[in-house]
Amino acid sequence: MALMPFTDSMFLLVESREHPMHVGGLQLFRTPEGADRDYLRGLREDLLKADNVPPLFRRRPARPVNTAGYLAWAQDSDVDLDYHFRHSALPQPGRIRELLELTSRWHSTLLDRHRPLWEIHLVEGLRDGRFAMYSKIHHALLDGVSALRHLQGTLSDDPDDHDCPPPWGSRRPPREKARRGNRSLLDTARGSLEQLAGVAPAALRVAREAFREHTLTLPMQAPRTMLNVPIGGARRFAAQSWPLGRVRSIAAKTGTSRNDVVLAMCSGALRDYLIEQSALPDAPLVAMVPVSMRKQSDTESSGGNQIGAVLCNLATDKTDAAVRLATIHHSMREAKRIFNQLTPVQALLLSGINVAQLGVATVPGVVSNTRPPFNLVISNVPGPRKQMYWNGAHLDGIYPASVLLDGQALNITLTNNGDNLDFGITGCRRSVPHLQRLLLHLDTALSELEAAVA
Amino acid sequence: MALMPFTDSMFLLVESREHPMHVGGLQLFRTPEGADRDYLRGLREDLLKADNVPPLFRRRPARPVNTAGYLAWAQDSDVDLDYHFRHSALPQPGRIRELLELTSRWHSTLLDRHRPLWEIHLVEGLRDGRFAMYSKIHHALLDGVSALRHLQGTLSDDPDDHDCPPPWGSRRPPREKARRGNRSLLDTARGSLEQLAGVAPAALRVAREAFREHTLTLPMQAPRTMLNVPIGGARRFAAQSWPLGRVRSIAAKTGTSRNDVVLAMCSGALRDYLIEQSALPDAPLVAMVPVSMRKQSDTESSGGNQIGAVLCNLATDKTDAAVRLATIHHSMREAKRIFNQLTPVQALLLSGINVAQLGVATVPGVVSNTRPPFNLVISNVPGPRKQMYWNGAHLDGIYPASVLLDGQALNITLTNNGDNLDFGITGCRRSVPHLQRLLLHLDTALSELEAAVA
Repeated sequence: MALMPFTDSMFLLVESREHPMHVGGLQLFRTPEGADRDYLRGLREDLLKADNVPPLFRRRPARPVNTAGYLAWAQDSDVDLDYHFRHSALPQPGRIRELLELTSRWHSTLLDRHRPLWEIHLVEGLRDGRFAMYSKIHHALLDGVSALRHLQGTLSDDPDDHDCPPPWGSRRPPREKARRGNRSLLDTARGSLEQLAGVAPAALRVAREAFREHTLTLPMQAPRTMLNVPIGGARRFAAQSWPLGRVRSIAAKTGTSRNDVVLAMCSGALRDYLIEQSALPDAPLVAMVPVSMRKQSDTESSGGNQIGAVLCNLATDKTDAAVRLATIHHSMREAKRIFNQLTPVQALLLSGINVAQLGVATVPGVVSNTRPPFNLVISNVPGPRKQMYWNGAHLDGIYPASVLLDGQALNITLTNNGDNLDFGITGCRRSVPHLQRLLLHLDTALSELEAAVA
Repeated sequence: MALMPFTDSMFLLVESREHPMHVGGLQLFRTPEGADRDYLRGLREDLLKADNVPPLFRRRPARPVNTAGYLAWAQDSDVDLDYHFRHSALPQPGRIRELLELTSRWHSTLLDRHRPLWEIHLVEGLRDGRFAMYSKIHHALLDGVSALRHLQGTLSDDPDDHDCPPPWGSRRPPREKARRGNRSLLDTARGSLEQLAGVAPAALRVAREAFREHTLTLPMQAPRTMLNVPIGGARRFAAQSWPLGRVRSIAAKTGTSRNDVVLAMCSGALRDYLIEQSALPDAPLVAMVPVSMRKQSDTESSGGNQIGAVLCNLATDKTDAAVRLATIHHSMREAKRIFNQLTPVQALLLSGINVAQLGVATVPGVVSNTRPPFNLVISNVPGPRKQMYWNGAHLDGIYPASVLLDGQALNITLTNNGDNLDFGITGCRRSVPHLQRLLLHLDTALSELEAAVA
């Protein structure tokens, strides 16, 4: 039984009721023509028969209880698939609202550490006849980007392909943490990682150092907001799709990037939401935006994932949508120049979720007494470019659900999916009331941008 | 903010992922004539309007995190009823099996300590048109008997009474821990309780002493079985009703009590189940059976609840159903004579769930190395004698779901409900496979008893 790498165990060590450390995803499918009311039950039973569970989905902590030291992974030889892969249903009237309410509940509960750290729900009862799938996997197994990539690997671009694997299976072997790009990153960083010595305080020290260094080059100061408070364990989740073409068109007319336009949508929505809550600060909100820092000249073998994070001025103090977009565009360009590239350890600690912030947040009192380094994470994760299908079911949407931390009560993660952009918004249920309003405000913000550049 | 009495806080202090400390109940109702498919949603929305939440259902721990010392109760001034009172649905085909599967999931997850410690689900989608309600409340607020009594208080024996309160409401004020019979028990025991000093190790010491004293008078030795192992956090729940008349008739013909017949049903079922699992021990299983020890001469004011617990020889080594019943009858009579009455502190620690066993079980190594004091708890809890209704809906069943502990992976709790006996069986999902088989075996055992006395 091998000890767990620290990059896995840190997510188990810091997990608590208030800070579940799993990532999630909600997928929405059109039920194939001619399916009867037992379709989903039959699909589930068929998939349960494929019982060759790959190693990643057999992993569980050998000692389920938190300890101050290393944890080890064990391979579960007898995975209870009936437990992990569940059949669920929506109550009346079966709107998307009921689906999001149920997803919120599922995203709030801790995974059982006595079992492999994942759960998947097949959901029926949408009144429009579609079905959904909510998946949840521990960050110690896969980060959000890899989890989404894994799910995509189970889909097909052929509507007639009825040999798609179950969501825990794959056509190619799943890319485990130790085997994906981070491997070489880990190799590069081995000297630094060894000093972590597997105990939480050392990890927090390194995280704090990365954070402090980060702070030195901060191009702006984030205001304190209602989003930067200690959080509870319950979550709310909201999700919606918008046509990629609308965003692309605004970007083309303004000479900005699609990501700039997305950030401007978020900015407008956050501004409207905070005004509604009587909580808009005078200073503009600052978003932490994970970005790929790989240069054209880099080859696969040279350096692993070059993940960075830039801070973006969201210009929520500006009333004009076009001015907000221009400010964001400028901020993103400047930020890239200033930050260049993080060191491998910093990249590791800051990638996916901002673990450096986590290191700080777990020191009591820090959240309430210091200014936040940024107000929220807005993450744009690569998704499928083509229209995808799963055993004949047309994929309508794929919405990421993220991890929250003390001081970071809201997260917006989006992904492209064929001709759409799919937004997933995760919030602390107590700190971020009426989270669903953000969907309405995102829609308004997109229309405002279109009007401003018309 | 008052410190929490130790009798409340001990259930929070010992709670973990593996040992959720809530009690639950599943109620099954016939939907009133003429109800449309939005009936349950409408009912929920009506009940949500009654927002005067009584103090017991506003209570949450002031510090949500476990500490070594006392916890305090806080009153939540702004209860998010939409979070606590949920609308849920069954997947196809909507059998009782799907209902039990969903109940098992709900009974496995921890309550959120940032909020008042209860959750209630209204469940639609049963194919026979009925609906269900699953309620879950922390043992620190109410024990299983009191929780059931509270639920009964929201029902009516009048099918035309449409003014029944919501499940968190009541016609009379709910009987909180500090105000129910235990109050005087606590008063009696104050001297002993003060020495507990509010820290867990002291509590465990007292629990162990009660247990040791208990052991001294054990009339029999329980064998080690597959049911007496460390447990995981996931649960399975099974439930079924049998006509009280069938049990009554066997008792009358044999000169035994109804409780003896119920224990004989459990004995036959456990024997068949353990044979199926190739795990029947040579020695007979021993059940811990909570019993009321109040004497006819006792008055309400004299002594509080006189709760005791007797150990019963279940005679699972006997092949003949009539012999098993006779042995159980004899054992229950002898046990009562031997045990007489526990001291108030012992009664408190042993009542409801067997906290003494818990005190022992949390010392590492004890579960696997010592013989269990008994093999399982079988508890017969008072329920409604008449046919009850809730806002016009006919109550078909009321099934208790219990707490499990290390070394006690199975619990059978039953209650009378009008003309029925309603059994709720709670098991550790990992340690007790095919829990639903016990329902079949209970049915067989009842038929065998009828045949044996015919």
